[in-house]
Amino acid sequence: MTVRVLGVAPGLTRCGVGVVDVAPDRTAKLVHVEVLRTPADQALELRLLTIGRGIERLLDAHRPQAFALERVFAQQNVPSVMGVAQISGIALLLAAERSVPIGLHTPSEVKAAVTGYGNADKRQVTAMVARLLGLAELPKPADAADALAIAICHAWRRGPVAPEAGPMTPAQRAWRQAEASAKRR
Amino acid sequence: MTVRVLGVAPGLTRCGVGVVDVAPDRTAKLVHVEVLRTPADQALELRLLTIGRGIERLLDAHRPQAFALERVFAQQNVPSVMGVAQISGIALLLAAERSVPIGLHTPSEVKAAVTGYGNADKRQVTAMVARLLGLAELPKPADAADALAIAICHAWRRGPVAPEAGPMTPAQRAWRQAEASAKRR
Repeated sequence: MTVRVLGVAPGLTRCGVGVVDVAPDRTAKLVHVEVLRTPADQALELRLLTIGRGIERLLDAHRPQAFALERVFAQQNVPSVMGVAQISGIALLLAAERSVPIGLHTPSEVKAAVTGYGNADKRQVTAMVARLLGLAELPKPADAADALAIAICHAWRRGPVAPEAGPMTPAQRAWRQAEASAKRR
Repeated sequence: MTVRVLGVAPGLTRCGVGVVDVAPDRTAKLVHVEVLRTPADQALELRLLTIGRGIERLLDAHRPQAFALERVFAQQNVPSVMGVAQISGIALLLAAERSVPIGLHTPSEVKAAVTGYGNADKRQVTAMVARLLGLAELPKPADAADALAIAICHAWRRGPVAPEAGPMTPAQRAWRQAEASAKRR
């Protein structure tokens, strides 16, 4: 069965939200992508309100079966990390309110899943997302591509590959290896 | 005019919420205090949902005129900081949805406001909160006292002291000095 996943790449200035439908044979189709923006000079709570309402609107419009979000670490000690964490808290609340199952994935898990390489750069992720979704143009800005990559990653990682799903792509194989090696650590 | 402030001391395991009424002469009265708790083995999104619903319930029950929250820094690189940031994002969203004005205060601002000393320990903050609110017993756990301290701090810091408000308490004077010295930096 096809699964619809909504992915969020959280950010206060630009928050990417992507919706994809992923079939059992792992092919992915773009449903919707947009970037929620808030002005840097606005009060924090109003920025969070704008982004929260945007995510809410997209959850209700597209009714995804799964919700995927970047896993944030306190170790990423950059000024934007608190805003990212605040948005992720809001996004998790909104999904939980709707009983949409949630998946958290680290940036390197997402990169490994879509490109086969956990240290891929933004350009590579964007190009691979465009290819996987059969898009004529590259999704822009990077936050849009990131949100779609998180959604695709989640759909692929959800469960064991069913035998009828066909052989894994090179990217999937690379990810399985990365995952296995991470588990051994 | 008396102002009602709801203060939140965010935490995933224990989230303190305190409501106080503060008169123009700076005397403070306890309206409500409680600690929202979630089990550590529960899924993150369910913990956030429980805390979000709790804050929502208290906002709607007590209809505060102001909302006060601890300002979180990414520098506090402890494991719990992401949970604290996620709760703060949710709390800010819920207050903004109700158009309740928001104030953010650092832990040392809160301590300085209620005890006169920015490095006060938990015991001192708890004792001072009990004295300021005229409580026969110390508020427990520390998260309850913290939430009340944040609410009192916010009420006192809201605006310039009106002439009719009477002389400042020693704690307020100490805080004004700390604030002035912080501004000079």
